[in-house]
Amino acid sequence: MPQVKVGDYLFQRLKQIGITSVFGVPQDNEYALLDLVFTNDLQFKGNPDELVASYAAGGYARVKNYGAFVTTFGAGELSAYSGMAGQYTEFVPVAHIVGYPAVTARKAGFIMHHTGGDSKYDTYRKMSTDITAAVTVLDNPSTACAEIDRCLNTMIYESRPVYIGVPTDIAYAAVFDNSLQIPLALELSQNDLELEHIVISELRTWMETKMKPAMVVDGNGIRNICVKEINELAKLTGFPIFVTAMGKGIVNETLPNFGGVYGGAASHAEVKRTIATSDALFWFGSFLSDVNTGELTSDFDKTAFIGFQRFSVKISNQMFDVKTKYVLRALIHSLQRAPLHRKTGSKMAWDPYPERDISPHGPLTQDFMWHALSDFFQKGDYIVSENGSSASGIGTTRFAKGVSMYNQTISGSFGHATRAAVGCFQAIKEDCGRYGRGILVTGEGSFHLTVQAVADMLRFALKPIVFILNSADHSVERLARDKTADYNGVAVYDYSAIPQAFGSAHQTQYFGPIKTAEELTTLIGNPAVRGNDCFTIIELVLVQVEAQLSVSIAGAAVDEVDELHKQKPSASSTQGT
Amino acid sequence: MPQVKVGDYLFQRLKQIGITSVFGVPQDNEYALLDLVFTNDLQFKGNPDELVASYAAGGYARVKNYGAFVTTFGAGELSAYSGMAGQYTEFVPVAHIVGYPAVTARKAGFIMHHTGGDSKYDTYRKMSTDITAAVTVLDNPSTACAEIDRCLNTMIYESRPVYIGVPTDIAYAAVFDNSLQIPLALELSQNDLELEHIVISELRTWMETKMKPAMVVDGNGIRNICVKEINELAKLTGFPIFVTAMGKGIVNETLPNFGGVYGGAASHAEVKRTIATSDALFWFGSFLSDVNTGELTSDFDKTAFIGFQRFSVKISNQMFDVKTKYVLRALIHSLQRAPLHRKTGSKMAWDPYPERDISPHGPLTQDFMWHALSDFFQKGDYIVSENGSSASGIGTTRFAKGVSMYNQTISGSFGHATRAAVGCFQAIKEDCGRYGRGILVTGEGSFHLTVQAVADMLRFALKPIVFILNSADHSVERLARDKTADYNGVAVYDYSAIPQAFGSAHQTQYFGPIKTAEELTTLIGNPAVRGNDCFTIIELVLVQVEAQLSVSIAGAAVDEVDELHKQKPSASSTQGT
Repeated sequence: MPQVKVGDYLFQRLKQIGITSVFGVPQDNEYALLDLVFTNDLQFKGNPDELVASYAAGGYARVKNYGAFVTTFGAGELSAYSGMAGQYTEFVPVAHIVGYPAVTARKAGFIMHHTGGDSKYDTYRKMSTDITAAVTVLDNPSTACAEIDRCLNTMIYESRPVYIGVPTDIAYAAVFDNSLQIPLALELSQNDLELEHIVISELRTWMETKMKPAMVVDGNGIRNICVKEINELAKLTGFPIFVTAMGKGIVNETLPNFGGVYGGAASHAEVKRTIATSDALFWFGSFLSDVNTGELTSDFDKTAFIGFQRFSVKISNQMFDVKTKYVLRALIHSLQRAPLHRKTGSKMAWDPYPERDISPHGPLTQDFMWHALSDFFQKGDYIVSENGSSASGIGTTRFAKGVSMYNQTISGSFGHATRAAVGCFQAIKEDCGRYGRGILVTGEGSFHLTVQAVADMLRFALKPIVFILNSADHSVERLARDKTADYNGVAVYDYSAIPQAFGSAHQTQYFGPIKTAEELTTLIGNPAVRGNDCFTIIELVLVQVEAQLSVSIAGAAVDEVDELHKQKPSASSTQGT
Repeated sequence: MPQVKVGDYLFQRLKQIGITSVFGVPQDNEYALLDLVFTNDLQFKGNPDELVASYAAGGYARVKNYGAFVTTFGAGELSAYSGMAGQYTEFVPVAHIVGYPAVTARKAGFIMHHTGGDSKYDTYRKMSTDITAAVTVLDNPSTACAEIDRCLNTMIYESRPVYIGVPTDIAYAAVFDNSLQIPLALELSQNDLELEHIVISELRTWMETKMKPAMVVDGNGIRNICVKEINELAKLTGFPIFVTAMGKGIVNETLPNFGGVYGGAASHAEVKRTIATSDALFWFGSFLSDVNTGELTSDFDKTAFIGFQRFSVKISNQMFDVKTKYVLRALIHSLQRAPLHRKTGSKMAWDPYPERDISPHGPLTQDFMWHALSDFFQKGDYIVSENGSSASGIGTTRFAKGVSMYNQTISGSFGHATRAAVGCFQAIKEDCGRYGRGILVTGEGSFHLTVQAVADMLRFALKPIVFILNSADHSVERLARDKTADYNGVAVYDYSAIPQAFGSAHQTQYFGPIKTAEELTTLIGNPAVRGNDCFTIIELVLVQVEAQLSVSIAGAAVDEVDELHKQKPSASSTQGT
């Protein structure tokens, strides 16, 4: 029976599930393993630091379903944990491959570097269990293949990250490759058909009989890969359909029944009213978190809530053990064969995008900028949006059909976007034709967290358009708290010098600083800007302490809560009394 | 009884132990708390990302004894864990203050951002227990002061990092400030004097009777703040004294009995022989890890080993429960009153620095560079050295009296140096007069991990001299493994553009690329370079695939181990047989 190395087996499995680029930071404990990336005909896309590697793998997974990256044990892997935790939260299937010290060295109790200076080797593996769906350290060649398969199958099944430790003396151990012929389980197991019929019938009844049905699409809608089904359902039912901050980009906004963004109290009045009065709320992949609900200000009838998650459908108070993907497919099939009797599908009575002051003159405002970007975005764009102002603002832009995007609403790690963009845009490049331009929208504070990722975009010959929103500090943070606080000051970069600093050999262009509405209008009309022929930075300088509506409202909500805390500490607030 | 806010109490405690700058990344959950940094008359030195904040606090602690930084819960704190683990390993007392979501929100089970998208709030606190000496989340104002004191006292006592979570609704809770009058315990409790006498007597006997005594100073010598005592002992005994890679900078190298660096098989032949044949090895703050021992090639008589640690002294096979600091003080006192009868203290028979080719002509080699830097370093310098080539190389340089340095040998996190330099140089600035120039020595791959830290050095008006060792890839990594491997390629920066990109408003200077021995000689003679009037980058371009002796030896050792693993996987290496 043919033999392969343990490392070969791992990389062959990654290839089988569509991964062609592996990210990571080359360091000790991984060299021998990294040699096998190449011999297994994968690309290694090395990154400057582990958090870039982690998020790059996540961005890659969002486009190509799965991602992988390699770090060294200890100091290296720990630097990636924030990314892993984010992927765990947001259901992004990424394999974190960790180069471990040799089993022989560990068994001998040697004190190796990257440890706690002791002979304990289990600390980091244990820590990882809280932020991954499965963990293994391949200490035994005879179980290595089974362990790799267990972890990767869990990653796929749960759509969550996993941790695979590969000791230096195991990476090259010979194992039989026979199980490579058995594919990993890429599809969820089928539903109990009887139960599925009950659910479909129940859903149809709600759809037929309720007076004010509506649909809300949240982040887990895309993480569970139901984008096509959700859009099909929107067409077939004609029910008003909304997205949350995290769901933006999932729904085709040119549908007549697209109603805009729902974000609790921060929503458009008509959107708020529709949700508050709905008697049948079909809510896909909900994450009822603070940021996703206008600081927990969602107001709707809980008994009208029909929640669709990866492994369950909840109808009012009843939970059904069925997978949403198959339920939606069956429901669509049912609706195609026997359409709803009710008449729905008229155009929304309101403009799904907020009214704003879009006067094309004067200093650049957030309102005008987001309006202008609505015209800039086009079919095929894949937008990675930073959290904070960028995420709030982009929620208010109008997307043409075929514009994709994501942000990281729940995990909410600042800096994720620039890091993730490396992998996301690499994936777009590999999937040539499916997407067009890669667009990164980031505030400057967030960009500063990880500016070194620019060098990767340059040397991987990615050609994104990078919008840097410069308000000389973290605008959403300032709005949320304090208009002037000194601690929010960030460094003053010269963005025009960034491409030179990080890769002068590459073709790049810089436009900016754009300070007025007129300048932005001219810029957006420039074909050199609209193309994606080279790495492009566009620096937008926004009027200070000014943001668009939803951010201001969210900020006001935070203000209120904070003030409350300052004035009224909890009851047991004095010591010793 | 006067009341203060919980946040006030925390920051007053930090002030009491000499902290004047608090590092961190301002984000939600910490704003109210950060306001109190200022009102308590501390400086807030905001950083671009959490790993810079964490290491900056560590660098600050290495100079000013203690450090502190603030991050937000979840995504923010996780990004700092690699730094915390490093500080745990290397006994650096740093308080990680984490802005937690409100107790009220957590008790209500709200799904907040930065969580796992669920209502679990305990995950990260639990993870932190493995990399800190104490953990608390201040959920109750009535115990908050006691918890703060418990954590800070543990941090001081164990010289290790701690984790203090401050929920948004607790930061402003009113507490009585009476316990602020009771100082934190800055000194270790005294030894049992009887036991201490026994140890002193035993140590004196070894010192008097052994034929070939020697001293080795490792990293924990400085972490336990015994630098003065160790140097005094070196003078009083005259025993040959050596430093490990991690101990470099602790011993006054102008002492006649200074014998150079001990690194196992990689050491100078005379050093190796002295250690191997010693019958009384006084080893201070030992970390017998791989990197510190020439890849575990240390060869000495274990029964001759006398190990001094923070809380113990081990003499041959006998362990004594005494604190080294007091033992050393008492030993010094004893030796001053009654000097040893033996005659020691003659100059070493060898040059403690390796012989190398220091021909001042031709392309710049590592050998010539380290030789030249020996002349560049001067009294008052505080050098932060990166791991890898930088650490190995700097071990071979000659330090004038009064040159301080550290690297991060055991934790071995690449990128630590540039991050730590922010805090280290800030501390030097605050301690004006005690140190002179701040010098950062880093390879370029390590610098790329965290180049954004440059912006902090600029806006905090730090004026370090930054040596960037450019060999167009990670040289120690390549030497260790593969001379050409593609995965080791790093981005090609234009270092002359870095100051412009990160802070064009500040005065800076760039020298380079320095490619020949002649150019380096000229450079080092230039008073503008030697001063520390402004932020200075010096780019040294080294001959490819060439490093000085000790690195090459370490590399060869790693090669050997790796080859062994490739060829001979462990016995149970075939599957199913």
